[in-house]
Amino acid sequence: MEVEAKFPYREGVEEKVKEIAELIIEKFEHDIYFSHPCRDFASSDEALRIRQDVEGITLTYKGPKVDVETKSREEVKLKVENFEAAKQILEKLGFRAVAEVKKLRRIYGLCEAIICLDDVEGLGKFVEIEVEADNIDAKEKVFFIAEQLGYSRNESIRDSYLELILQKKSRKESL
Amino acid sequence: MEVEAKFPYREGVEEKVKEIAELIIEKFEHDIYFSHPCRDFASSDEALRIRQDVEGITLTYKGPKVDVETKSREEVKLKVENFEAAKQILEKLGFRAVAEVKKLRRIYGLCEAIICLDDVEGLGKFVEIEVEADNIDAKEKVFFIAEQLGYSRNESIRDSYLELILQKKSRKESL
Repeated sequence: MEVEAKFPYREGVEEKVKEIAELIIEKFEHDIYFSHPCRDFASSDEALRIRQDVEGITLTYKGPKVDVETKSREEVKLKVENFEAAKQILEKLGFRAVAEVKKLRRIYGLCEAIICLDDVEGLGKFVEIEVEADNIDAKEKVFFIAEQLGYSRNESIRDSYLELILQKKSRKESL
Repeated sequence: MEVEAKFPYREGVEEKVKEIAELIIEKFEHDIYFSHPCRDFASSDEALRIRQDVEGITLTYKGPKVDVETKSREEVKLKVENFEAAKQILEKLGFRAVAEVKKLRRIYGLCEAIICLDDVEGLGKFVEIEVEADNIDAKEKVFFIAEQLGYSRNESIRDSYLELILQKKSRKESL
């Protein structure tokens, strides 16, 4: 399970991150999200994504969020060899590419936690704090790190980047 | 596209194969086939499979057969890193494992064609001749090789191993 919370970026936060954590990698992540052929992922709160970055290509299933304060959810990840073949198989099965998320991500490590400084195309900057854990109790660790960076738990943004991008798109369309 | 035809095994056929082709590999293939969450693969004549063998793990989509004489069809193949994660993602998306095919396969190479001597658990022995090609015209090459092995084109078996196994299962259940 990915126990994680997102916070709005604030001036000076990366300096605070650098004080407590070590830079692991800076990378550009290109994600394509798919709709299901017969299930409404928006209402089931699931997601299916192909991510391409410098470390390879990963197919990820994200289960429904399991917590009201954070965006924690089950994730199943599968490294695959070929982006185009992965996309083609999904499309043959009736999945459709519905949104793209592109971001520059700097990942900092702090014991078993990671802190991501994200600059998302079309959305701006955010801070994500993430721990892989067996259960949601680990969220206290996430909020403890957040507090050290100056965030209170009610600043946690539960929407995923996918949801934020789809919300922005639908606001644009309704104008 | 996989242009391919299957023939019943006959005593002495492997000796004929050895005269015209070179053994490439002998391997045990373990396949799991899945049903689609909202499409009847039996009537759409498609298939989705995870194969595990000594060369790795492959997710394969098979399109409908495109020819009345052979079992030729489009195939999209994707090498993946982890069998369990692949199965888990498919199951999370509503796909269900419906059948298993296990076989010992000896693959012989003859120019761009391959000849497979298959010993399939529960079904017995078969010979498959296969060419990767852009169009169905390549089936004449497949039938030419078949003829050299003593097969006439009307001996071609269009059913896949999956279909043969499901047929056997349903015959058993109706007894």
